[in-house]
Amino acid sequence: MPRSVAVFGAAGFTGALSARLLFRHPRFELRTVTSRSDVGRRLDDLYPYHRVPLTLEELDLERHAGVDAAIVAYPHGAAAELVSELRTRGVRVVDLSADFRLRDAAVYGEWYRRHPVPELLDEAVYGLPERYRERIRAADLVANPGCYPTATLLALAPLARAGLIGDVVVDAKSGVSGAGRAATETTHFVNVDENVSPYGVPRHRHTPEIEQELAELGADLRITFVPHLLPLDQGELISCYVTLGGDGVDVDALYAETYEAEPFVEVVSRPPGVRDVRETNLCRIYVHRDRRAGRVVVFSVIDNLWKGAASQAVQNLNLMFGIPEVEGIS
Amino acid sequence: MPRSVAVFGAAGFTGALSARLLFRHPRFELRTVTSRSDVGRRLDDLYPYHRVPLTLEELDLERHAGVDAAIVAYPHGAAAELVSELRTRGVRVVDLSADFRLRDAAVYGEWYRRHPVPELLDEAVYGLPERYRERIRAADLVANPGCYPTATLLALAPLARAGLIGDVVVDAKSGVSGAGRAATETTHFVNVDENVSPYGVPRHRHTPEIEQELAELGADLRITFVPHLLPLDQGELISCYVTLGGDGVDVDALYAETYEAEPFVEVVSRPPGVRDVRETNLCRIYVHRDRRAGRVVVFSVIDNLWKGAASQAVQNLNLMFGIPEVEGIS
Amino acid sequence: MPRSVAVFGAAGFTGALSARLLFRHPRFELRTVTSRSDVGRRLDDLYPYHRVPLTLEELDLERHAGVDAAIVAYPHGAAAELVSELRTRGVRVVDLSADFRLRDAAVYGEWYRRHPVPELLDEAVYGLPERYRERIRAADLVANPGCYPTATLLALAPLARAGLIGDVVVDAKSGVSGAGRAATETTHFVNVDENVSPYGVPRHRHTPEIEQELAELGADLRITFVPHLLPLDQGELISCYVTLGGDGVDVDALYAETYEAEPFVEVVSRPPGVRDVRETNLCRIYVHRDRRAGRVVVFSVIDNLWKGAASQAVQNLNLMFGIPEVEGIS
Amino acid sequence: MPRSVAVFGAAGFTGALSARLLFRHPRFELRTVTSRSDVGRRLDDLYPYHRVPLTLEELDLERHAGVDAAIVAYPHGAAAELVSELRTRGVRVVDLSADFRLRDAAVYGEWYRRHPVPELLDEAVYGLPERYRERIRAADLVANPGCYPTATLLALAPLARAGLIGDVVVDAKSGVSGAGRAATETTHFVNVDENVSPYGVPRHRHTPEIEQELAELGADLRITFVPHLLPLDQGELISCYVTLGGDGVDVDALYAETYEAEPFVEVVSRPPGVRDVRETNLCRIYVHRDRRAGRVVVFSVIDNLWKGAASQAVQNLNLMFGIPEVEGIS
Repeated sequence: MPRSVAVFGAAGFTGALSARLLFRHPRFELRTVTSRSDVGRRLDDLYPYHRVPLTLEELDLERHAGVDAAIVAYPHGAAAELVSELRTRGVRVVDLSADFRLRDAAVYGEWYRRHPVPELLDEAVYGLPERYRERIRAADLVANPGCYPTATLLALAPLARAGLIGDVVVDAKSGVSGAGRAATETTHFVNVDENVSPYGVPRHRHTPEIEQELAELGADLRITFVPHLLPLDQGELISCYVTLGGDGVDVDALYAETYEAEPFVEVVSRPPGVRDVRETNLCRIYVHRDRRAGRVVVFSVIDNLWKGAASQAVQNLNLMFGIPEVEGIS
Repeated sequence: MPRSVAVFGAAGFTGALSARLLFRHPRFELRTVTSRSDVGRRLDDLYPYHRVPLTLEELDLERHAGVDAAIVAYPHGAAAELVSELRTRGVRVVDLSADFRLRDAAVYGEWYRRHPVPELLDEAVYGLPERYRERIRAADLVANPGCYPTATLLALAPLARAGLIGDVVVDAKSGVSGAGRAATETTHFVNVDENVSPYGVPRHRHTPEIEQELAELGADLRITFVPHLLPLDQGELISCYVTLGGDGVDVDALYAETYEAEPFVEVVSRPPGVRDVRETNLCRIYVHRDRRAGRVVVFSVIDNLWKGAASQAVQNLNLMFGIPEVEGIS
Repeated sequence: MPRSVAVFGAAGFTGALSARLLFRHPRFELRTVTSRSDVGRRLDDLYPYHRVPLTLEELDLERHAGVDAAIVAYPHGAAAELVSELRTRGVRVVDLSADFRLRDAAVYGEWYRRHPVPELLDEAVYGLPERYRERIRAADLVANPGCYPTATLLALAPLARAGLIGDVVVDAKSGVSGAGRAATETTHFVNVDENVSPYGVPRHRHTPEIEQELAELGADLRITFVPHLLPLDQGELISCYVTLGGDGVDVDALYAETYEAEPFVEVVSRPPGVRDVRETNLCRIYVHRDRRAGRVVVFSVIDNLWKGAASQAVQNLNLMFGIPEVEGIS
Repeated sequence: MPRSVAVFGAAGFTGALSARLLFRHPRFELRTVTSRSDVGRRLDDLYPYHRVPLTLEELDLERHAGVDAAIVAYPHGAAAELVSELRTRGVRVVDLSADFRLRDAAVYGEWYRRHPVPELLDEAVYGLPERYRERIRAADLVANPGCYPTATLLALAPLARAGLIGDVVVDAKSGVSGAGRAATETTHFVNVDENVSPYGVPRHRHTPEIEQELAELGADLRITFVPHLLPLDQGELISCYVTLGGDGVDVDALYAETYEAEPFVEVVSRPPGVRDVRETNLCRIYVHRDRRAGRVVVFSVIDNLWKGAASQAVQNLNLMFGIPEVEGIS
């Protein structure tokens, strides 16, 4: 029997895609989609290409919390309280916001604001399956990683775990969907088209999330992380410039071994493009040894809305409910 | 009286733009445009938006070398011999190719092929006016810098000259016009659109050019340089990640002072976009001190066809002929 | 047991997509993919996003013709002879070229060249399922419609059949993938980006195909058909301006009734965009009665590579083999 | 001595471009730029690429109306009252809004709202120089045409004046800058990118403006006019499908003669693209006789922000002040 599921905040890009994936998932039954901005509007009117014939409802926990699981796609800061309510009612949650990604409430407070429910932080598991698969299976609250951390951590984990990262610069390039559905000066076509620029300088909020997870892997260091906005819709390319902190390792073999059994990570032998993984849950990685300059450069590409958000959330739900990990997303 | 000038190789993107700028220049008279591929075709048929009503001719040095100056826009390797012929006939030349940029024929040989006229290398002046203005004034042969070196060197020169560069990674992003006019798999719309990928990995030919000039400025080091292809036409953004090799300096003041008198370099106080400088000879630079990670990040933007090629060539011609440097390009 | 199938000419855009759809189709087994240009190359190297792990082979009819069915994706003119060979060997064929779309060899000769196998024209069924579903079921040779005719005929069929078309202008807009994989001046990113222009003026080869089928529906007239090239990858919008040749009809009801049972045609109540149907076999139609000017304007959108080519070919194969029509393409 | 001029509403796309053109115009001195939304912001901060180092002020007629001329770039409806104030104070005005384009207040009322100052309508001259050059020279109030009417009327005027238009369909395609600077669902990058759709159906407000001017030329008819939104920034292509209402005329000669002395209209012999006229005051026209279907198809391209708005406004100002018509815009 399919598990019942709801998507709260389904009018945004990642919430709507989550709804699409769950609506067609053979093992979940999408019961409810809610929105704060578009109550009463059909999801297939808002996003014709997702073809989800459900109507966005106003949140009503009495009626909506009777599900086995929920994806919460609220903005940072706004998600924590809804997640807390849902957990109180026994709903298992994958949260797409940043609210439960940082384990330390003080760090959260430094980069965001005072955390509203710090007592829940211990319960949350960081939802990068390639790293925390077993813990996710048992989790009731999964903090879905940010899109940049997903691609960056998959790119750097083998080196970090092997103790090889001396220093690292992360230059990230993202399509506009990463900026969300809000119509702003930033997302106006005329400002993006034929343009490229860095943003989030000096400090982008994904930085502490990446550093936390690198430290967990043994690489406790301060990174320079700079994202750039590109004139394309979906897709994210991460270029990691690593000064090695050790040597004698066969880097290609290290990556091949690390990911050989992973269903959603592909290690390839030439520079990837974001098109290669568009509308998939895949991460493609290419490792290049720059012997002239004594560095390793690692490139990774994902679809920011898929592996960077919605399809990874479904991957997490699959794990949480003992469903084959690739179901509904391959 | 205007100086007579020719553009050899005017059917490509940079040659055609050179022709446009010279055709409208108050102090030059564009006598001849040649092409190897499109003889007999009107330039304003090939590039309507340049509005140059001249017909592309087949090269005939007897007829075409009677000019005061020439811009040569031939491919790397093919330019050297034409430049040599023109110099023999007393024509002053700005060469857009890489053939005279590297001072050491052995280095040229390593990255390109055996240099056909190494004896001319000593005569050539590297045409970055902000660096070699006085030498360009006296030069008969100017090697116009590559687009990436132009933007990278303007971004790094102040730190290099001050002895502050410990290490540097250069992540470059360019529009498709940088790949030239040839129709290839790389320039096919469907391969570029909604895509971004690194290219020229492991070693892009602009690397030794950048290293040569950094060394001239006192920073003798091996850099990691990785360009990426973006879905836009014109424009180039360079992100330089510098590990400082010294300290105690006011970086903002350093940049402000270095460029305060430069007509074509703007130091700005927030992240630039390539649109800011589209169709201009300008380079915009933004310097950010990343104190968390102990780095300085320098961003620079240019139009790769303008300051990265054709308008910088005209800037050099202006200097060579004692014409105000901004004439015809501002 | 799945039917065995081959795609001949799988290196082009429509052939490669056909291979992808058949490779994942539950009722077909893709045995062979051939190419004239890329023999030995893996299809998932050429098109990473299609994820078809097969190697392109050189055509060898002795080895490759032992299949139940084939999709032929050769250029116009080149397809006819291969199709003839395949039919001789008993292979059922869906041909993506124009070679069997026009029933009259003389008309074909006027717009293309002398037809190489005119005797096969009678056998061919025009593969627009919404029009010829029953004949396709029984066909051994299906001529898959052109992308423009597909969208235009679905837009105009209800009016044509009702005898209501007095006159019609068809203004078509297409993405660049419609121009095919060849790297040419037309498909160079720099020529397409930030541009839009008509092409195929004065007479585009899809004109007689549209006129033939309109005549079959009872509307025997000369149309004006003008396609335009847009800076996007996949997608096609057709704007049909119809001067009514009759009246008193409820146009909205006419369209609703015509298509209510069609699985792949959606009649909608507001102007559609090509994004609505991207990567689907759907055609969306919107009908507007311009009472001021006495016209009916019909808009239709398809994905030119899907419903305009490859997925419609699979729809036809499904019909030919008694498989549910939506299998593998919804 | 230069004439003093102000731009009211300089924060929008067309106002800002007007400011740029006037700031560099040798015969005008730009005294003031105002804004309702961005008071205190520098124009070169808002639009770096326009390079106008002026600060946007709040409107203060006491201080700002002491100029010889003004360009008013207010939204439709909001412009009329400011124009009226300026005229009272003796300022000569070019108004970019629709408020004075329609001569009949009743028609204005039908398509917009009740006209606030109908008494000024008689004074206004429709600012299409190729049509009303002499009247513009003497005008104190010029209603700058809409972008679509500009391109459409230049395309159709020769046929209309010759009494040859039996019927006409106008299919227009425009870049996103035509939708203005406001960040909306329509202008969000993700909604425009890889998309194309009709808009303004059933009736776009430029329709009566086109019909009014066609009637003035002798072609009193109801047109079907449908604009489409394309994924590009600047540029507009109009495809006019004309059923001839007469015959025996040499259409090519008619167009060549009509425009041979016009500095800003180019009649060309092959299909134009909007890139051909980007950032110019030019209109390119291509006429095709479709003898099969008995129609004439006329294509015209302009830059919607330039000839479709700001540079045409400057062209009008040039005429009004006896300045050579091409000054500052060629």
